[in-house]
Amino acid sequence: MTASIRLFLDTPLHPGAEPAGSPAQAHYLASVMRARTGGVVRLFNGREGEFAARIAVLHRGEVRFAVETQTRPQAAEPDLWLAFALLKRDATDLLVQKATELGVAALLPLRSARTQAERLNPARLAAIAIEAAEQSERLSLPALHPLQSLGALLDGWPDGRRLIVAAERSAAPPPPAGLLPAGLLIGPEGGFAPAELDVLRARPFVTVASFGPRILRAETAAIVGLALLQAPAFS
Amino acid sequence: MTASIRLFLDTPLHPGAEPAGSPAQAHYLASVMRARTGGVVRLFNGREGEFAARIAVLHRGEVRFAVETQTRPQAAEPDLWLAFALLKRDATDLLVQKATELGVAALLPLRSARTQAERLNPARLAAIAIEAAEQSERLSLPALHPLQSLGALLDGWPDGRRLIVAAERSAAPPPPAGLLPAGLLIGPEGGFAPAELDVLRARPFVTVASFGPRILRAETAAIVGLALLQAPAFS
Repeated sequence: MTASIRLFLDTPLHPGAEPAGSPAQAHYLASVMRARTGGVVRLFNGREGEFAARIAVLHRGEVRFAVETQTRPQAAEPDLWLAFALLKRDATDLLVQKATELGVAALLPLRSARTQAERLNPARLAAIAIEAAEQSERLSLPALHPLQSLGALLDGWPDGRRLIVAAERSAAPPPPAGLLPAGLLIGPEGGFAPAELDVLRARPFVTVASFGPRILRAETAAIVGLALLQAPAFS
Repeated sequence: MTASIRLFLDTPLHPGAEPAGSPAQAHYLASVMRARTGGVVRLFNGREGEFAARIAVLHRGEVRFAVETQTRPQAAEPDLWLAFALLKRDATDLLVQKATELGVAALLPLRSARTQAERLNPARLAAIAIEAAEQSERLSLPALHPLQSLGALLDGWPDGRRLIVAAERSAAPPPPAGLLPAGLLIGPEGGFAPAELDVLRARPFVTVASFGPRILRAETAAIVGLALLQAPAFS
């Protein structure tokens, strides 16, 4: 495929621009993809769409591009946020990768009563999100929020945005479709504690929904929920 | 939670039965879960529902249960199959785990033109499916079919079952809902080759569907497709 290499570059892009890539991108192009000077890639910066660009310099850990034409104008992702109780490292990594593939606009990691991890590594998660955005043809990156408590999330929740909470072993209905802007809230393995569920149910913007008759792992529930909430927009 | 340990046992289950578990289950109970003689677990065999059972013997790699009451009658999973071009090992493992969580009745691995792996390890995949069935509260295991070619899959496809093919970069509509019995077909990374797509489109039981505007990894497309196809049955 022509120009199947697609890179995120946090720099202005327009025809004639000559942005530099990072040393990691230079390594990826030269050593992993075996790209050469003169090769064509696609670049995006999350703000100005996607551009075809030629590799102008690729040498000793340095890469510089010559931006040519715009290949896609900037377009909005679905206005869908994912709030999630921090999981173990591998599950958190998977969740960030898949949520980015599925177009979420914001990732909001949380501490909750049964959370199994205490810290997150923003740089690591940002790198995972960038790679997923590059591969999935997104034009933007999800915003990665700092770790906060469930209470802080709820206190800061914006007007006009529904929050869909995945509930296991409940008689709740499936998530309503066509609800964007919305947020999806996924609990830790083992679910939210009863007191947390009470706090959630007391908020008028919260809708509790079931994602099927089986018990899903947290990251599976996130993927399923993101698919169902935006399905009406698929075409 | 009471009886949160749930084990698959391929043996007849009924009140009064005294089945033995495997040495691996004995190890899991004793060393991982710190269970003791007299503790309560739940057992299922894929045919007769789920039963509460007491640990009667747990000693030196040996475990024996005393089956008490039935906790759930056997119930059918959604009549949904997943056919998939074999992926790299980690992605195949993830796909088998998630498809089992999402209730698929059969897993049909395929060779295709762009398949990146040549062999599968049925024992490894069966172990992953069993663990996912135990954790997701399934009452059955998915049937794991042997590796076959795309042509053999199509030639043997049963009457009356639709085959939904996930297509990237297409103008296809989203998958129709409420279509079971059905199968979902997921191509390899990079998609099916043009000749394979021609073969697929020529079959009357095939429906090509889009799973959204972004390019999804194969295992993500499988999870999204399984969620969308069975969503009408969620409640």
